[in-house]
Amino acid sequence: MENLPSTAPSVARLIGELNKLPGVGPKSAQRLAYHLIRMPDAAKALADAVIGVKERVFFCSQCQNLTDIDPCTVCSDPRRDQSQVCVVEGPLDILAVERTNCYRGTYHVLHGVISPMNGVGPEELKLKELAARLKDSGVEEVIIATNPTLEGEATAMYIQRNISPLGTKVTHLARGLPVGGDLEYADQTTLTRAFQGRTEL
Amino acid sequence: MENLPSTAPSVARLIGELNKLPGVGPKSAQRLAYHLIRMPDAAKALADAVIGVKERVFFCSQCQNLTDIDPCTVCSDPRRDQSQVCVVEGPLDILAVERTNCYRGTYHVLHGVISPMNGVGPEELKLKELAARLKDSGVEEVIIATNPTLEGEATAMYIQRNISPLGTKVTHLARGLPVGGDLEYADQTTLTRAFQGRTEL
Repeated sequence: MENLPSTAPSVARLIGELNKLPGVGPKSAQRLAYHLIRMPDAAKALADAVIGVKERVFFCSQCQNLTDIDPCTVCSDPRRDQSQVCVVEGPLDILAVERTNCYRGTYHVLHGVISPMNGVGPEELKLKELAARLKDSGVEEVIIATNPTLEGEATAMYIQRNISPLGTKVTHLARGLPVGGDLEYADQTTLTRAFQGRTEL
Repeated sequence: MENLPSTAPSVARLIGELNKLPGVGPKSAQRLAYHLIRMPDAAKALADAVIGVKERVFFCSQCQNLTDIDPCTVCSDPRRDQSQVCVVEGPLDILAVERTNCYRGTYHVLHGVISPMNGVGPEELKLKELAARLKDSGVEEVIIATNPTLEGEATAMYIQRNISPLGTKVTHLARGLPVGGDLEYADQTTLTRAFQGRTEL
């Protein structure tokens, strides 16, 4: 962050905080800051939303997705098929899957992926919660929808190895997904194909 | 904003507010929202900064720049040349000029530009404040640094016509600036040249 002696300290602080956000450079941070100053209502709404999310959001006790009611809207929806659980790396992946309108089961959010390079082992992920959930419920199929990357595949293999003994069917998304890509950015057709062509591990 | 039934309402609200920011699309808004949720300290700092700026920032009584002390750090700096006033459209333009390190005078922020298309007339800008400032002070030169656009040029002409009777020298930045461009994005060399080659209106 460049030093800005001509900027009021509270403005410089806001620019600094905005500059820390992913994908927001110093120029964008300045633009955003002055936008917020020009639009005090937008600024207040944003601050309230940030504080609100901080206060109200927690993990759903069933699927571990972010929620402000427990169980979350998906887990408590009677129209969702509780016998299917789609395992994803993060909450954004759920949004991508929901956009396809081809899946009516429930989810399980790992909140990460096994990555020895980054010091993330299986115990950092919500895997204990997944195992506990499978034991005492009528889940018939676990659809693993981790990203088609090295770490995602390794995580999928790890989950498959740990779940198979429980007798639950384990599938993973078909290789309609472009390998090396990011599930969050897959187009809807590709993701729908991947759902339809899922294969047993 | 797409409808996100699988998203907690407070998360959807945060995504919605972020999506309203200039240059932030739905995907970026989602990424930013989940970043803020994953980093509660960053979220708190951002919310505090947004609220802080809303509470503490006002217009400097002399130059009309955003400040949290009055007069602002530039106006109250004894090393700045109070006989020169550089007139800019917005606070970001001051940052661009400061980056060149070639100007040691003071500023005057118009907070806009005359634009009949957008219903902005001279009375919407901080022009009365500029006239008042020139009357009772030792300002010897007004350097007009509005953007080299149609509206910027029209605003410059308007200011020149109103200030000339006061006997103050009025200059504007040399046409080293790429016409049609945006002062905020001019590179430092071009902007320095423009400062050095300023010509009397």
